[in-house]
Amino acid sequence: MQNISINGERLWDSLMQMGEIGGTAKGGVCRLALTDLDKQGRDLFVSWCEEAGCTVSVDKMGNIFARRPGLDNQLPPVVMGSHLDTQPTGGKFDGIYGVLSGLEVIRSLNDNNIQTLHPIEATVWTNEEGSRFPPAMVSSGVFAGVFDLDYGLSRADLDGKTMGEELQRIGYDGPLEVGNRQFKAFFEAHIEQGPILENEEKTIGVVTDAQGQRWYELTLTGQESHAGPTPMATRKDALVGAARIIDKVNQIGLSNAPLACATVGLLQVFPNSRNVIPGEVFFTIDFRHPDDQVLSKMDEQLREYADQLSTELGLELDFKQIWYSPPVPFNKSCVDSVREAAQNLGYSHRDIVSGAGHDACYISRVAPTAMVFVPCEKGISHNEEENADPKDLEAGCNVLIQAVLQQAS
Amino acid sequence: MQNISINGERLWDSLMQMGEIGGTAKGGVCRLALTDLDKQGRDLFVSWCEEAGCTVSVDKMGNIFARRPGLDNQLPPVVMGSHLDTQPTGGKFDGIYGVLSGLEVIRSLNDNNIQTLHPIEATVWTNEEGSRFPPAMVSSGVFAGVFDLDYGLSRADLDGKTMGEELQRIGYDGPLEVGNRQFKAFFEAHIEQGPILENEEKTIGVVTDAQGQRWYELTLTGQESHAGPTPMATRKDALVGAARIIDKVNQIGLSNAPLACATVGLLQVFPNSRNVIPGEVFFTIDFRHPDDQVLSKMDEQLREYADQLSTELGLELDFKQIWYSPPVPFNKSCVDSVREAAQNLGYSHRDIVSGAGHDACYISRVAPTAMVFVPCEKGISHNEEENADPKDLEAGCNVLIQAVLQQAS
Repeated sequence: MQNISINGERLWDSLMQMGEIGGTAKGGVCRLALTDLDKQGRDLFVSWCEEAGCTVSVDKMGNIFARRPGLDNQLPPVVMGSHLDTQPTGGKFDGIYGVLSGLEVIRSLNDNNIQTLHPIEATVWTNEEGSRFPPAMVSSGVFAGVFDLDYGLSRADLDGKTMGEELQRIGYDGPLEVGNRQFKAFFEAHIEQGPILENEEKTIGVVTDAQGQRWYELTLTGQESHAGPTPMATRKDALVGAARIIDKVNQIGLSNAPLACATVGLLQVFPNSRNVIPGEVFFTIDFRHPDDQVLSKMDEQLREYADQLSTELGLELDFKQIWYSPPVPFNKSCVDSVREAAQNLGYSHRDIVSGAGHDACYISRVAPTAMVFVPCEKGISHNEEENADPKDLEAGCNVLIQAVLQQAS
Repeated sequence: MQNISINGERLWDSLMQMGEIGGTAKGGVCRLALTDLDKQGRDLFVSWCEEAGCTVSVDKMGNIFARRPGLDNQLPPVVMGSHLDTQPTGGKFDGIYGVLSGLEVIRSLNDNNIQTLHPIEATVWTNEEGSRFPPAMVSSGVFAGVFDLDYGLSRADLDGKTMGEELQRIGYDGPLEVGNRQFKAFFEAHIEQGPILENEEKTIGVVTDAQGQRWYELTLTGQESHAGPTPMATRKDALVGAARIIDKVNQIGLSNAPLACATVGLLQVFPNSRNVIPGEVFFTIDFRHPDDQVLSKMDEQLREYADQLSTELGLELDFKQIWYSPPVPFNKSCVDSVREAAQNLGYSHRDIVSGAGHDACYISRVAPTAMVFVPCEKGISHNEEENADPKDLEAGCNVLIQAVLQQAS
């Protein structure tokens, strides 16, 4: 292990400065992918990387790579990174920590005049959240060959604007081909987004696996009509159907606890007027489990119920699984680098399964990959109250630099 | 019963001509209150009334009264009417039929040289829909003393324009005091806006009552957090709470069938993102029943369930009743005139309760009032697909003229 520590205060200051871009009154951040605010955040990151002597390049999905040369630049780089976009009411740390801890590693290597055999890169993956342009992690997905480029560029927001159009508008439609690059290793540092580390008073989560996920889009169509004169018995109320499915989704999650997660996060009612029976409801479902067999069972339970219910209520059901991501086992060598770093630095740690999807899940298909988790306050994320302890963030970044040095030397 | 029939073809032609003003590509009408299109519709109605020999006057709320003299003009008039404004995606019949069937009655009395003891008036109530300027039925409400004049004139649209300003702009800020007038009787002919008459193959609905209504606004607040790493057991999901209440609202409606109506028409989820557990849900509830005791019981069932559920799920509940309109029993003599007319003319008919609010509901507070319903296709209204059979519209107008003659003689 090299005797080097990152600068925790500089890391914290960079996080706070980035958090001002799209900062909300409640202390959170709203910086949706490819908005003007996202451009501001990207520009700030790029300027910092250039100040740190990096060469910055951008690919056709807007993914940013800031490269610190190695002793042998023919060797594949060790890459660190995450995303800068947030949820509509997100926080300062989810994603941002992974990007800026990558930058902090490069700054600290500079401060200490440390040369590495392999080049080192800090990276930003475009539109990880998928809030504005579903699905999530689309650009690391294109990089890893999960999606093709046309699919990625044609993802559209609710106004019909595509990622391709918006990348061009903000000037991040780079020239680089997406993917087809070799990484020596990829590391993503991240807040846990769950309560386990905090509850067990551990500083570092050594992420061994990520949960499998299935995402769905459902549209129920009934008959829009006047809420007054339409008798209950003759109604085809799409929102009543949606309500029952939401309750069932919750039951499926509870009955497959403690590892299952089941959520309806987004729902839209048409025409959405007080005295009109809803004629159409669109909503999404998010299922997660680390065991693929259980995830398949949850899928079956949902399909069976939704079919039966829509028939019973006389509703038309459009049921689409829009995304399936199998459970991900991370790379043993990279995971070991993280665990050893935590151990050697004397941080309390435990192995953990990631409940959320991360860019690292896709990158693990094309490069040896691992993640470093640090605790977040009350396990809350995707929320303006998201918070983390500067000491924990510093610890995670110290683990990151050691793991990177081990892989890059 | 006098031997007189209205001219169904002329009535239909007038409806179609009026429907061209603001007519939409899908065959509906968008003629919001006090727009230029509403002025065009009003001008056309006024010109037709003047051609029919009526004296037209307008009050300060823009309500129009077209008067055909009686043998004794000191006697209070028998009044017929409804509204000319529509929903944003409305049809050709809701409201318009009540106005133009009043005109058709006057035209037919002229054709047949029939003199009545009481004067007869065809009237237009301003802004019944309340789509542009909430609340609904505001001008008949001012007429009936439910709202004062200042309240009515100061109702504003989303751009901040008031009814007073817009009445002046289109030249319908008349000189007449609003209300303080005696009517011998008031009749409003209307499409049913529900499926009962069509389903039972009845031509005429004899409207005995209008349902009481209670409108609510509910906000459930839980804890917004990441859909992946937040264990099911620790969630506070506001949408799961809302879903259970929506289902309960439906059950309350069904268990008080056939006369109860219970609807959640509008719902908004915050932050409304696929992979975020909803932290807040806002939704509305619309309860209706013709018996005030049953309506109160429905209210109690709702409050008890919502309180208990929000405690059970650890959600904060903000529960507001925003509107209460007691059931309206129409005037027995006027209702009898309608029923007898239907019977004498040999039309199939049934007593019916109005599920929707109408200008007649407010006017019934200051004048003996009844309504005549005719079927509408599939019970659909507030929709561009709204449609009615010319034969049914003719029958309803024949019932109207007989009921008017009985009251006006």
